[in-house]
Amino acid sequence: MPKIWSQTIEAHRDAVREATINATAALVAAHGLAGVTMSRIAKDTGIGRATLYKYFPDVTSILRAWHERQIDQHLQELLHVRDRATGAAERLEQVLTAYAMAIAHRRDHDTGITGPLHRGEHVAAAHQHLREFVEDLIADAAAAGAVRRDVPAGELAVYCLHALAAAPALPGPAAIHRLVRTTFTGIRRQDPEQA
Amino acid sequence: MPKIWSQTIEAHRDAVREATINATAALVAAHGLAGVTMSRIAKDTGIGRATLYKYFPDVTSILRAWHERQIDQHLQELLHVRDRATGAAERLEQVLTAYAMAIAHRRDHDTGITGPLHRGEHVAAAHQHLREFVEDLIADAAAAGAVRRDVPAGELAVYCLHALAAAPALPGPAAIHRLVRTTFTGIRRQDPEQA
Repeated sequence: MPKIWSQTIEAHRDAVREATINATAALVAAHGLAGVTMSRIAKDTGIGRATLYKYFPDVTSILRAWHERQIDQHLQELLHVRDRATGAAERLEQVLTAYAMAIAHRRDHDTGITGPLHRGEHVAAAHQHLREFVEDLIADAAAAGAVRRDVPAGELAVYCLHALAAAPALPGPAAIHRLVRTTFTGIRRQDPEQA
Repeated sequence: MPKIWSQTIEAHRDAVREATINATAALVAAHGLAGVTMSRIAKDTGIGRATLYKYFPDVTSILRAWHERQIDQHLQELLHVRDRATGAAERLEQVLTAYAMAIAHRRDHDTGITGPLHRGEHVAAAHQHLREFVEDLIADAAAAGAVRRDVPAGELAVYCLHALAAAPALPGPAAIHRLVRTTFTGIRRQDPEQA
């Protein structure tokens, strides 16, 4: 098969997957999980049922793909935040703030379907990825003299992510900013002698 | 009924409840949740089945009572830690350390039955109780000049409990002590001007 043709097929497959995931997410948002069937998804997307089953065996697998895409988007947003900031300490603080805001916001829009999905392997992998991402930022900030060095960067990353998980329990953006400030105080280098 | 007699009955009931809960916990530890039946509990405790059913309708209700007792014991231990320490700042630090150690330890011994139990109402009430307990300690330490006052004590309590929830993810006691130190740095008063 010529390369141009295989690329076209690949792009077509991606488009079908995307359309299926989008339609399913919209159906769940409108009708809840119980109102979503493979037939309904086929109808809404205009994709034949037989074709749909070649892409996804059931509704759960579509939701898992949707959730993976959501997680990817959140991680991409954090990468953008990192790349927009200048200086190791500011990069770290901006990313932690964006993360706290994102998880607080996500809770508001939780439709109840992410609970079971959150126990999947892809979520464990994403958590691991996020932890390493934050650990790298902390190690850079420590090397730049902004973060304490008496605690390993990996442990500080675990601390930050747990502390910021308090965000959904707080009443609003001002409280979340205070949470980020408090969390950041915990990891900041306290005095020049310490490092 | 004379008072002495009603007290005897009350003590007897408590003893039956305690014996039932202890036997059930031992059976779950030895055989897992699937190996535990009301008949088996009756046999192990020597309590008649009919009597047992007057105390608990099923195995789940016994496990819930066991879990409530566990939570009560953990809170009691934290109260003892508080009462042994002198000075508001030290009391707070000792309690946070004991809490982090307790949840790290609990994870080690988790038999898999506490997961479902953790979603019960009594757990929500215990979390609320714990949060208020820590909030009071923080408010005292803030009044004594040891804790920052630019963030409300309630928010600092939520921050502490979330940050310390990282304890089970850490490799050992030394790392947990570093976690407590980092968490405590976050809430400590930074300079005399701030408060």
